Amino acid sequence: MNISVISTAQQAQDIDFSGKIAVVIDVLRATSVITTALDNGASEVIPVKTVEEAQSLYATCNAANTLRGGERNALKIEGFDLGNSPLEYKKKSVEGKTLILTTTNGTNALNNVKGAKVVVLACFRNAQAVVKHILVRLPQCDRPTQDIVIVCAGTESHFSLDDGLCAGMLIELLKQKAPVETDDLGLLLNHYYVENQANLLGALAGCHHVKRLFTLGFYDDIKFCLETNCVETVPIVNKSGDGVHSVSTKQ
Amino acid sequence: MNISVISTAQQAQDIDFSGKIAVVIDVLRATSVITTALDNGASEVIPVKTVEEAQSLYATCNAANTLRGGERNALKIEGFDLGNSPLEYKKKSVEGKTLILTTTNGTNALNNVKGAKVVVLACFRNAQAVVKHILVRLPQCDRPTQDIVIVCAGTESHFSLDDGLCAGMLIELLKQKAPVETDDLGLLLNHYYVENQANLLGALAGCHHVKRLFTLGFYDDIKFCLETNCVETVPIVNKSGDGVHSVSTKQ
Repeated sequence: MNISVISTAQQAQDIDFSGKIAVVIDVLRATSVITTALDNGASEVIPVKTVEEAQSLYATCNAANTLRGGERNALKIEGFDLGNSPLEYKKKSVEGKTLILTTTNGTNALNNVKGAKVVVLACFRNAQAVVKHILVRLPQCDRPTQDIVIVCAGTESHFSLDDGLCAGMLIELLKQKAPVETDDLGLLLNHYYVENQANLLGALAGCHHVKRLFTLGFYDDIKFCLETNCVETVPIVNKSGDGVHSVSTKQ
Repeated sequence: MNISVISTAQQAQDIDFSGKIAVVIDVLRATSVITTALDNGASEVIPVKTVEEAQSLYATCNAANTLRGGERNALKIEGFDLGNSPLEYKKKSVEGKTLILTTTNGTNALNNVKGAKVVVLACFRNAQAVVKHILVRLPQCDRPTQDIVIVCAGTESHFSLDDGLCAGMLIELLKQKAPVETDDLGLLLNHYYVENQANLLGALAGCHHVKRLFTLGFYDDIKFCLETNCVETVPIVNKSGDGVHSVSTKQ
């Protein structure tokens, strides 16, 4: 299969995703939050671009079964139920609930891959499950004959190494199961992952987004988001494109 | 100083270069060709986007003092004097001549950085000279107080590792002379260069553009373009933006 890597959500706007499988990564923290929320029993996640969209959609929902989550400048949005820390998305808070989520980068990336045949969300916590889903669980008609596009959400239109390192991990896991051709960015990121897989935090020591979250006191979030292959949950964008549900690769 | 790295010529379209120093890299082969042509005495290089522009401009020039060079699909353009191999740009062919050049990626990258305060062209052959020029030879008013943007031309809108490796080398040379802050792509490319500086060809073994040029028989071009710090010539885009002349950092 051919794998290409897109370095930012912004760049994804220029890509024709038709007939392709898009894998969206925003390790810190949107795809880690969505994976955790669905793994803990949230019924659906609805990503929206703006705070205003989140509020108007919330006004049409049953408040008892709906949560508003997300961030601006990495911090919880005033009046929202939850922020953008995956540690907040515990079973007791999210089970059975619909989550309306707006974040700076991740929800934009999801918006920019509309048109892909299949859109799955990946992070370090579900990387192996995402690979299993793509290679084994997709209906034959949706399986990649050639094209997977990994979209690194990035941070405010800049490439973010935390997303790139996760892309490198996905490529490594796919290579272990199938013949893979990747582009030059994929080659570089796969190499960097293989070289640093024993110490992901060390590999991200200079990463701007990691340093920013450290400064803001989100050390436990970073540690949680860098745990690998600990859930079987794969978030999938609904065919209608208006929400994200999950499938499990548990046997 | 702050250094950011742009992964393709296409992406450079979205960047505001005003007040910044742009360093354009197209190792294989445009910036290596331009550096070699000017180092061998060409009076000026005029990069144009299309073959048609090259032909119309040529029609207005003194044919005895003007050469048409460039490539499409990596091969010499029919009717042109020279192709895109730096090995063709010998002193006896180019000395005193104006070169009208059109290539697929490099000349687009140059077009997309218009608006930068200063535009210099870099390749492995003049990397140290480019750094010397930026840090020592620029007029004080043009010296970077903070912002250098390294633009990797890429190959048909994809990131190309040969350009990225050269960006990593430039960052390393700048770091040795001045305090440097770089973005995540710069961090990654600098790391990859430092790790592979003793074997640049090996570091590019999987690079798509390198493999393509190998297949087309351009092994000697690749070898030549990967020679480091062997010329003092720094191509500079004229303030008028319509041509490239050179300065030498020779003492």
